[in-house]
Amino acid sequence: MDSQPVTTSTRLDSYVDRYAARTAGMTASEIRALFAVASRPEVVSLAGGMPNISGLPLDVVGSAIGDLIQHHGAEALQYGSGQGVPRLREQICDVMRLEGIEAHPDDVVVTVGSQQAVDLVTRVFCDPGDVVLAEAPSYVGALGVFKAFQCDVVHVEMDDDGLVPDALRQAIAAVQASGRRIKFLYTIPNFHNPAGVTLSGERRTEVLEICRAADVLVLEDNPYGLLGFDSEPMRALRADEPDGVIYLGSFSKTFSPGMRVGWALAPHAVREKLVLAQESATLCPPQFSQMAVSAYLTQHDWQGQIKELREMYRERRDAMLQALEDLLPAGCSWTIPHGGFFVWLTLPPGIDAKAMLPRAVTARVAYVPGTAFYADGFGSSHLRLSFCYPTPERIREGVRRFAGVLEAEMELRETFGATGPVAGLPAGPRSGYDAPSSDLS
Amino acid sequence: MDSQPVTTSTRLDSYVDRYAARTAGMTASEIRALFAVASRPEVVSLAGGMPNISGLPLDVVGSAIGDLIQHHGAEALQYGSGQGVPRLREQICDVMRLEGIEAHPDDVVVTVGSQQAVDLVTRVFCDPGDVVLAEAPSYVGALGVFKAFQCDVVHVEMDDDGLVPDALRQAIAAVQASGRRIKFLYTIPNFHNPAGVTLSGERRTEVLEICRAADVLVLEDNPYGLLGFDSEPMRALRADEPDGVIYLGSFSKTFSPGMRVGWALAPHAVREKLVLAQESATLCPPQFSQMAVSAYLTQHDWQGQIKELREMYRERRDAMLQALEDLLPAGCSWTIPHGGFFVWLTLPPGIDAKAMLPRAVTARVAYVPGTAFYADGFGSSHLRLSFCYPTPERIREGVRRFAGVLEAEMELRETFGATGPVAGLPAGPRSGYDAPSSDLS
Repeated sequence: MDSQPVTTSTRLDSYVDRYAARTAGMTASEIRALFAVASRPEVVSLAGGMPNISGLPLDVVGSAIGDLIQHHGAEALQYGSGQGVPRLREQICDVMRLEGIEAHPDDVVVTVGSQQAVDLVTRVFCDPGDVVLAEAPSYVGALGVFKAFQCDVVHVEMDDDGLVPDALRQAIAAVQASGRRIKFLYTIPNFHNPAGVTLSGERRTEVLEICRAADVLVLEDNPYGLLGFDSEPMRALRADEPDGVIYLGSFSKTFSPGMRVGWALAPHAVREKLVLAQESATLCPPQFSQMAVSAYLTQHDWQGQIKELREMYRERRDAMLQALEDLLPAGCSWTIPHGGFFVWLTLPPGIDAKAMLPRAVTARVAYVPGTAFYADGFGSSHLRLSFCYPTPERIREGVRRFAGVLEAEMELRETFGATGPVAGLPAGPRSGYDAPSSDLS
Repeated sequence: MDSQPVTTSTRLDSYVDRYAARTAGMTASEIRALFAVASRPEVVSLAGGMPNISGLPLDVVGSAIGDLIQHHGAEALQYGSGQGVPRLREQICDVMRLEGIEAHPDDVVVTVGSQQAVDLVTRVFCDPGDVVLAEAPSYVGALGVFKAFQCDVVHVEMDDDGLVPDALRQAIAAVQASGRRIKFLYTIPNFHNPAGVTLSGERRTEVLEICRAADVLVLEDNPYGLLGFDSEPMRALRADEPDGVIYLGSFSKTFSPGMRVGWALAPHAVREKLVLAQESATLCPPQFSQMAVSAYLTQHDWQGQIKELREMYRERRDAMLQALEDLLPAGCSWTIPHGGFFVWLTLPPGIDAKAMLPRAVTARVAYVPGTAFYADGFGSSHLRLSFCYPTPERIREGVRRFAGVLEAEMELRETFGATGPVAGLPAGPRSGYDAPSSDLS
């Protein structure tokens, strides 16, 4: 019964032509190896989207969870409902009320992080070849899901006020003229990942009107909405359009990503499908984490905690913007985020962000090249810088290192012409799928 | 911006033709409403597959998790690897060693319960129309996944020694002759859900030989393997065939389902695909639950705990078998489980288990009709009885009530001929998808 080495390799190779067609799109990002290096302590990572949870009151969390096990252990350790813990779904409605959403807990489905919500919505709606509209650029983890379900992503232009309504109109018209079917518009209205911009109030109204007129469902992904630096939370798209919007939220950025508790708020009929999809995917989301999150919300001043988080991230955003202003060579431009984790940087003409990445990592600084955030290989002259995780001092040091690498690159280009592929990395456009984990580095 | 009632209903209705083709197969089971009734305390539920976790040492669990938050809170509450916590994957290898498996932690992928492992494997391997072989009957939650991915399930006969090798040979030959592609054999070798039977040692060798010769991958689902009543754990199929078997395990039945921690052990190339699929589905499985399970395994005599669970479930199995023997009318037969949670009952000719269910629930006893466990509408003269959750006394009372309902049904049939649909429930074969949650009632 022992397998021979020869058999082994034959069988291993033979898997290649056994996978589903969707699996062809699941390939490890070529920048993944670099991120393994980037996670070394001597590297300043401006790449990752990990929240900084060092300020969490571990004593409060520990005692809330200790109580939970002692008093409700038999429930917390047991299977639960496929839709999620009822009490938590009520609390989720309280959270959403901060953004003007009036919702019933019956219409909330708890998911394994909001990543799983994107997955379940796509699973329920998208056949291969269906079109999903998404901002240009868009969240790498969502693009991965759309690719895994063989959707055709059509990007829609943004500017400093978010999604451009005219571009949305044109994109819808073009897709519909081509006879293809749009399943939804995937949008991150607040403190966009990776672009750092926010959809203005006027545009919210306009985007909803366009989508209503064209009968396009909106998938509103809002992990950062409560992390604004300058004002009260913006009114959610869902607040003004209960029937045409599926809203996604998460506790990953306001409490703990390790709990993996996110949610979808959906029109009733869609909610039923999402619950069935959730049961098929996991039977039920983790009961233990859900009850832990619920206990935290009950026993802690979570709104006060979010306020502290906002202050911390604002300080880091300021450090990032100041460092960019002080240290970057002429020819760069960047967005000014009013919340969230990210700045989107545009490089001087002719500089390729992915080609430059190995040199940056060698200089002990990491970022995510812009191509990760496009389904179509665009984005090579852009990159995402995150300010969520490192301290202000490290952020400035990271930008200093980055500026040095960029200046050297610009000099090289001045001397020898366009920079090319380095260290085996292709530089040009490609249909790159830089897997979600690049977002966690 | 407020939506009009008319608009609302139009938009809601309009979702119907927007879903993906796969979603057509996601419909709520018609017996689901009955299970909502069956969860009332006055009903003895012999339907659910919920483990009895009342014996868990909540003080140990609470203190292990308290320590975890105190000493490793920043890690436990943060994002983790898409593959799962390294230390836990080592411990999973220790668990699998009890069944003769020698594996490397690199080849383990942690999943949100083993349900998600079935989902990810199917996602990676199956295109619409691909064939999955499965025992007749098979696990309702796996059938749901196969249906959601539009697979074509071909059932293979079992007897008291599990999967029948000749039937497997014939099924493979028939599918291959028809030009269709078999992606894998899905099998539950130990204490089968729902059939209660176990694949004998000789047949394990034979099944592996058949699959190797026909180049058919085996998906070995083993949630109950350590819960045998009479002997040491059987040797896993994976133990003798590292390259042709994907093995699925779970902590749901040996520790806590509320943690939602299961795993897949896969050949290296497949493992890479599963990690990418996991990242697309959830970014990473819940770090917090994984570390909690790991702390429990480290700080508690988990093998001693499993021994206690075995004793408890053996006592309940004995109560179930004794009650069936003492109380059931002639004409019934049932399997004798040597572990796990379930007995599979065959009714006297002409009695339809699904048609009888409303009468059983009215008489305050619940079970799962056999049709739930077939992809093809077969199984109407069978049903699954679970002995995992109620006490021995309640089990006997449940069987007493069941026997009363069955006797009345047999009398009716004697007087009026075949029993028909009752209370809106179709009685005949149908392609019923009795959703996974029916397994949790």
